[in-house]
Amino acid sequence: MKKGYVQVYTGNGKGKTTAAIGLSIRAVGAGLKVFIGQFVKGMHYSELDSLKRYEGLITIKQFGRDCFIFHDPTPEDIQCARDGLSEAREIVFSGKYDLVVLDEINIALFYKLFSVEDVLEIIKNKPDHVEMVLTGRYAPQEIIDAADLVTEMKEIKHYYQQGVPARSGIEK
Amino acid sequence: MKKGYVQVYTGNGKGKTTAAIGLSIRAVGAGLKVFIGQFVKGMHYSELDSLKRYEGLITIKQFGRDCFIFHDPTPEDIQCARDGLSEAREIVFSGKYDLVVLDEINIALFYKLFSVEDVLEIIKNKPDHVEMVLTGRYAPQEIIDAADLVTEMKEIKHYYQQGVPARSGIEK
Repeated sequence: MKKGYVQVYTGNGKGKTTAAIGLSIRAVGAGLKVFIGQFVKGMHYSELDSLKRYEGLITIKQFGRDCFIFHDPTPEDIQCARDGLSEAREIVFSGKYDLVVLDEINIALFYKLFSVEDVLEIIKNKPDHVEMVLTGRYAPQEIIDAADLVTEMKEIKHYYQQGVPARSGIEK
Repeated sequence: MKKGYVQVYTGNGKGKTTAAIGLSIRAVGAGLKVFIGQFVKGMHYSELDSLKRYEGLITIKQFGRDCFIFHDPTPEDIQCARDGLSEAREIVFSGKYDLVVLDEINIALFYKLFSVEDVLEIIKNKPDHVEMVLTGRYAPQEIIDAADLVTEMKEIKHYYQQGVPARSGIEK
């Protein structure tokens, strides 16, 4: 059986979540089964609509409530994230998915919604064939150390600085 | 009409092409029309199969021959790339596509398959609503200067270093 690795996409630049989605699309093209769990996201993203075409091949689930990341997390946010992690753990350990994307999990760690040890435990004990992709800025050093591949998306220039708001189909 | 910007994904890390594909998927979810032209690529990638589900919404075309990027480009490679650029130019100027991805165009520039002025001319004269995404390592400074958003995908750690070959569904 093919060995699965742990990939991390972090940094302050645009392209982390989209890279994970693109990887999911590529994986499906090769006959792999994909699960995408999105932490700290409960808002609507356009990819939720388009990924419906892959029903049964890509399963996507949001573990977050509304966007709280500009505020302090509430006990409800914390509970949501912990329930999500526990579901993600089951998904990984079931071995039914070849690729498991945990989108924005680094942000969940940054806000201490659960502990880095909880995530490391999943990485260390995952079935050998499962590939994991962890995204989100502020990846902690322990996650970087545990990963096989780490890309930092570094913002060189961003049109947010020109006052461009997040646009449907491009940022959300 | 919504204004389109120019995005560049460059750097030596994994995630440039997948970010462009993920962005295409997001765009389609918002009802946008997408064209993806792939330079210096003629090999089979798994995404070619999975993107078939978006026929009529995402058009993907390869402008390259076999993988030559480890060798010197032949006159045929150069002709291929130039024909591709001329087709891409028409696609952009037609205004029929909201998002035009020119995948690995920076690599084509690096190998001098066509000139940076040719690409800048497209960027400068594109219809206002068209969003362009340019990927590939070694983005020249002139392209970075002309872009609205630039992300550098920086390799922090890569399993190629552990001798892992490119895997179907993950790298190709």
